Amino acid sequence: MPSNAVVAHGGGPTAVINASLQGLVEEFRRRSPGQALYGARYGLSGVLRENFLDLLACDPDLIRRAGEAPGSALGSSRLALADGDYGRILEVLRRAGVRTFFYTGGNGSMETALRLARHAHEARYELQVVGIPKTIDNDLCVTDHTPGYASTARFFACAARDVGADNLSLPSPVCVLETLGRNTGWIVAATSFARRFEDDAPHLIYFPERRLSLDRIAADVERVYRRLGRAVLAVCEGQLDDRGLPFGADVDRAESGLHRLASNLGHTLARLLSGKLGIRARAEKPGLLGRCCGPFASPLDRQEAAACGRAAAAAAAEGASNVMVALRRESNAPYRAATFLTPLETVARQERLLPEGWIHPDGHDVLPGFQEYAAPLIGEIPGWARL
Amino acid sequence: MPSNAVVAHGGGPTAVINASLQGLVEEFRRRSPGQALYGARYGLSGVLRENFLDLLACDPDLIRRAGEAPGSALGSSRLALADGDYGRILEVLRRAGVRTFFYTGGNGSMETALRLARHAHEARYELQVVGIPKTIDNDLCVTDHTPGYASTARFFACAARDVGADNLSLPSPVCVLETLGRNTGWIVAATSFARRFEDDAPHLIYFPERRLSLDRIAADVERVYRRLGRAVLAVCEGQLDDRGLPFGADVDRAESGLHRLASNLGHTLARLLSGKLGIRARAEKPGLLGRCCGPFASPLDRQEAAACGRAAAAAAAEGASNVMVALRRESNAPYRAATFLTPLETVARQERLLPEGWIHPDGHDVLPGFQEYAAPLIGEIPGWARL
Repeated sequence: MPSNAVVAHGGGPTAVINASLQGLVEEFRRRSPGQALYGARYGLSGVLRENFLDLLACDPDLIRRAGEAPGSALGSSRLALADGDYGRILEVLRRAGVRTFFYTGGNGSMETALRLARHAHEARYELQVVGIPKTIDNDLCVTDHTPGYASTARFFACAARDVGADNLSLPSPVCVLETLGRNTGWIVAATSFARRFEDDAPHLIYFPERRLSLDRIAADVERVYRRLGRAVLAVCEGQLDDRGLPFGADVDRAESGLHRLASNLGHTLARLLSGKLGIRARAEKPGLLGRCCGPFASPLDRQEAAACGRAAAAAAAEGASNVMVALRRESNAPYRAATFLTPLETVARQERLLPEGWIHPDGHDVLPGFQEYAAPLIGEIPGWARL
Repeated sequence: MPSNAVVAHGGGPTAVINASLQGLVEEFRRRSPGQALYGARYGLSGVLRENFLDLLACDPDLIRRAGEAPGSALGSSRLALADGDYGRILEVLRRAGVRTFFYTGGNGSMETALRLARHAHEARYELQVVGIPKTIDNDLCVTDHTPGYASTARFFACAARDVGADNLSLPSPVCVLETLGRNTGWIVAATSFARRFEDDAPHLIYFPERRLSLDRIAADVERVYRRLGRAVLAVCEGQLDDRGLPFGADVDRAESGLHRLASNLGHTLARLLSGKLGIRARAEKPGLLGRCCGPFASPLDRQEAAACGRAAAAAAAEGASNVMVALRRESNAPYRAATFLTPLETVARQERLLPEGWIHPDGHDVLPGFQEYAAPLIGEIPGWARL
């Protein structure tokens, strides 16, 4: 009986998700000779439609080059499975002789992986399920950090530095830099790495862990503006006000219904602040560029993403199941991390918030704990010289 | 009698305006020993307030390092001078023994430079005025292209490529990429360099030279969407509809009143298209990041910006006045350009549009003439491998 494997991608892509795919394919080829590894086109939609790509039949050099690209080389999906879909997926896997299912994603995808494992168990279908961590949001539990985060964090740290240099050049009083980030402040916190001089941007950093009123933000901005004649705020797209609403911004109509993010939060805030304070304000929203900007993919992030893919192939070859690959930090200076396995139950649907102790009591900056944690991941952000 | 010089920056900064400053300072030091070169803090505001920095007293290594930074190292301004201000400026220059005025800017700044030269002539104040070209918009006449353009063009070409890779990964049907660009399509046209495969983004590129109705855009998007199941549009922030309005977008309250740009055009279009076509749409607006993103400053752009600064110092030392430094393309393959001088009258307030013959008759793409022109400036945009 054949014993093949499938890999699928779930949720939004990152700058390094394809590096994980590359690591998986290379290690699977080495570890599991004679078995096929199918790539599902467009995530679980591809599984349901039996739309598979034979990854071991692809030119290894193409796999390597695709491994350097942002976006998902297989295609991904935000499809929310109905209960009946699990049975259909098991049917597809059975027909393809698949006994190993690799799923690359965040905590939502890991919940789906766990459910699939349970459905297989109930159906007495022997299936190994191995998760590969991926999310720019860095909100997976257990793992020290998640592949994809470091590149996005670096992108926004540089963006805050450069928008700050621009803001310093011209009297353009208030600038709202909207970052990615849904329910957690990991990404927006990274903008703190933009600073070198005391008056460098961002002057205010807000966290979705702390809901706050427009009045509160306006008071903060006014204080900074009085002192410096300008103010750069970093706010993530998932920030909510004290009523749990996105400040009146338009809400994005995403497919799963789970990711109803404001689609113009930065602009909405800029407009409100401008009206309230009577000073000019504008917003920048690099948006998806923050997760796909090729030149910002960090070498460390890419290496770790590939290592997670390899570890997944190794885990499968060694018979592990119902696990996700995670990263453990072994040393901070010099930075060193290693992969390990954690049960899917420990990560499925769990969301890791930015620790309370890393947020300034006033709610508008990080504390040194965060910078110690993130510095080796983000790497040095060289500052610009000032005359 | 001392014969000193002042340099001031006008309008929005670019990724390489400080390279021009560096070139100017280095060449001025060499060419005009014994003369002072003052940098005006925050453009003409700094001149009016006699807020000067003695640039030759700065550590040359600091000048070199500041030359690598985005944003204006001196600070810039959008101050629109009143007639009376010119006399006040001449007073300040007289007090500081300044006989040479370098002004780095675009066509608006060159008009100010020309007016200053005329006021000096009327006041019988001997003043050399030398313009240094700078604008991301590439809309200065006479010069083949303008320092600052190539870096911004490269940024948006890469942005379109990477947002395209992301858009291909997930069924996120319509994506509006808002680029910089006021009245001309030079920047938005550069997104055409993102393409490698026939179905690569951007699928539609619009130009402010062609006003067009929402219905027209919606019909274009629907056609692309039917064929590919997705559509990425590139639109610049200055795009207007057939009534000459920004599609109902909010208008930015800029200081001079001359730059009343829409501040949420991309989002407004996405929302309108979504409503009209009943498909999901979102917008990305890297905004000012497109002119200040340090890692995207192109080496060629930096070299040419520095060469323009050096040419300005040389022109002043040789007694030229009422001129702007410009670039002439001497060869396309291999690319080679040289500086020359053009009278301020030929560039002041004149705006160079994207040539009609470089815009597709249907108004939603470039023609090969543009790509031939821009290829050596933008450089290669490596494509991503696809599985």
